[in-house]
Amino acid sequence: MKKGMTRREWINRSATLFGGSLLGAVTGVKSINAATINSLSNKPVRMMLNENPYGPSQIARRAMRKAFGESNLYSMRGAKAEFKELMAKLNGVTPAHIAVGFGSGEILKKSALMNGIDKGELLSPSLTFETINRYAKTMKSNVKRIPMKNDIGIDLNRMNENINRRTKMIYLCNPNNPTGMLMNTDDLESFCLQVSSKAIVFVDEAYHEYVTDPNYRSMIDLVKSGKNVIVSRTASKVHGLAGLRVGFAISTPQIVKRLESYLTDSLNIVGLRAAIASYQDKRFQTHSVDMNNKAKKVVADYLDTKGIQYLDSQTNFMFIKTDIDISDFQPAMEKYGVLVGRPFLPFTNWCRLSMAKPEQMQKFNDGFGKVLR
Amino acid sequence: MKKGMTRREWINRSATLFGGSLLGAVTGVKSINAATINSLSNKPVRMMLNENPYGPSQIARRAMRKAFGESNLYSMRGAKAEFKELMAKLNGVTPAHIAVGFGSGEILKKSALMNGIDKGELLSPSLTFETINRYAKTMKSNVKRIPMKNDIGIDLNRMNENINRRTKMIYLCNPNNPTGMLMNTDDLESFCLQVSSKAIVFVDEAYHEYVTDPNYRSMIDLVKSGKNVIVSRTASKVHGLAGLRVGFAISTPQIVKRLESYLTDSLNIVGLRAAIASYQDKRFQTHSVDMNNKAKKVVADYLDTKGIQYLDSQTNFMFIKTDIDISDFQPAMEKYGVLVGRPFLPFTNWCRLSMAKPEQMQKFNDGFGKVLR
Repeated sequence: MKKGMTRREWINRSATLFGGSLLGAVTGVKSINAATINSLSNKPVRMMLNENPYGPSQIARRAMRKAFGESNLYSMRGAKAEFKELMAKLNGVTPAHIAVGFGSGEILKKSALMNGIDKGELLSPSLTFETINRYAKTMKSNVKRIPMKNDIGIDLNRMNENINRRTKMIYLCNPNNPTGMLMNTDDLESFCLQVSSKAIVFVDEAYHEYVTDPNYRSMIDLVKSGKNVIVSRTASKVHGLAGLRVGFAISTPQIVKRLESYLTDSLNIVGLRAAIASYQDKRFQTHSVDMNNKAKKVVADYLDTKGIQYLDSQTNFMFIKTDIDISDFQPAMEKYGVLVGRPFLPFTNWCRLSMAKPEQMQKFNDGFGKVLR
Repeated sequence: MKKGMTRREWINRSATLFGGSLLGAVTGVKSINAATINSLSNKPVRMMLNENPYGPSQIARRAMRKAFGESNLYSMRGAKAEFKELMAKLNGVTPAHIAVGFGSGEILKKSALMNGIDKGELLSPSLTFETINRYAKTMKSNVKRIPMKNDIGIDLNRMNENINRRTKMIYLCNPNNPTGMLMNTDDLESFCLQVSSKAIVFVDEAYHEYVTDPNYRSMIDLVKSGKNVIVSRTASKVHGLAGLRVGFAISTPQIVKRLESYLTDSLNIVGLRAAIASYQDKRFQTHSVDMNNKAKKVVADYLDTKGIQYLDSQTNFMFIKTDIDISDFQPAMEKYGVLVGRPFLPFTNWCRLSMAKPEQMQKFNDGFGKVLR
């Protein structure tokens, strides 16, 4: 794999491996993917995009089938209102505090758009999830990147020092992606309290449901007290609905209203119905988190035996210091049937490994063992 | 119904009638819709949002069920490439000419965004589909509205006269919504040829598949010859997939590339799979168009007997001069079990009527007869 491959290229490549159906048979269009698919005797395990290997739940699938009957209609507003009401109830806010997006990706992009229209500079850690930064650049906004601390954590002090009059939004992913690490909750809360009078703090809590640290708190409480904070959440992770595209923001009614004016403002009814069902399916969520923790333990135990460094992950992935260049590590692991995460610059000797099912993680350990030899 | 109700309010109201499921039973959240639903002994027929009463097709539903297995994955890029390839083949262009959007609504909004970033003024007929104009205003762009001709057609000469240096995009819906009327193809083609050197012409062909006029041609040929034209299409109409949100633009590779940078850039896999299946299901499309023409005839025959004016519709709706204020007409028709279209200012004495199944259209005729008495 080439160095510097973008996330898009990497996903495209992954999609080519798995996404194709055999269109050719019906239309005479030569499927671009058929050759690639046929050359695979045994599908490698996806450990590269932080997906839930168990989802969508059976309850969500049932809701999806039921939604087919509404799928010819422009009638998702009722379902959207219902989703907002449910999210409000589950998070102790009102529906006016909720903006629904086409995945939290849309929330991130439209927040970047909002910031761009305000001619604001975005402040962002140097190692984090890139969607908001990339869209800000598309909007020709400046993005100021703050280096990580020595422990690869987010440097809140340094972020604070770098706020100036042009700063209108600050992006923080907690737990962070690709490190999986939490910020200290009290530090983060203090930072938000201090800074939110000057700029909107966007706290991406995509992995919220996976956090096991008892000291963790969501930043939603700050939203409740009216601070300029946007918390984003997604149905793509623990709910296993990444392909359905449902995410949401929790913020003050003022910010929600403004954000909504930029959103595409309609969702797919199948995704909405799936999310409404899945967020009420506590058993599935608990099962997904339990299995994720088991999967992490399978890998952590192996890495501990080998004395290999990894960060304390509160998510469904682990950031591992393989000491092998990721551009070599990726194809090597693929040979052993495992697809690992894309490169995260400048951490080229690290690998982000998404959790598959616990019983599949041994495949990573075995492959890694062979690559290490 | 209040005068001046916005489209959003109207859809919200419709959604309240039909979109709600009984969330309350599971979560203890009081469903906002339950009361409304229970009070309806007999659902009124939806003739208000230009939906296909037959969709999604069985073949699309099968593809949707199959897509559940991919719904936990971020792997829609393969399906998206497949969809682009299919649209390219069906329209005689290359995949580089296709931008896929979350419904053609997203294509419209992001075109408005693109125009806004160029600081362009949008030129638009005074009576047309409002999505692009509304988003342009959200982007604080100026929208210059051109009055209709006496026959309620789009006045291309006057549009041409109003192009100035600030005009960067021109919106034309063909056939137009809510009139259902086509522009003369030769006139439109000449207009596009002349004007596209100065501004991008956005031709919204959402109702393309319903056109029966043998003189009609899509403006795709102009795209093929490299003109600055964007043609938009949608799976929401003849394919009956409005709730799944799949639309696309056909434009030059240069414009497509730029437009794509603003798009949310991921679709839902269930919608994509449904659209790929449905666009290959010629029988379903033909059946939908045939039934639509039968439905229009049921109404047209009735209106002819009564001597009531209506426009020549090449779509799945009709614009009818009821001579009754739409704010009175809507609730009156609802009483007779028919939901008709929202107000289109300043044509307050007209009604946009979407086609349901032919056998349901008699209900409109009967109700209208009673309202007229």
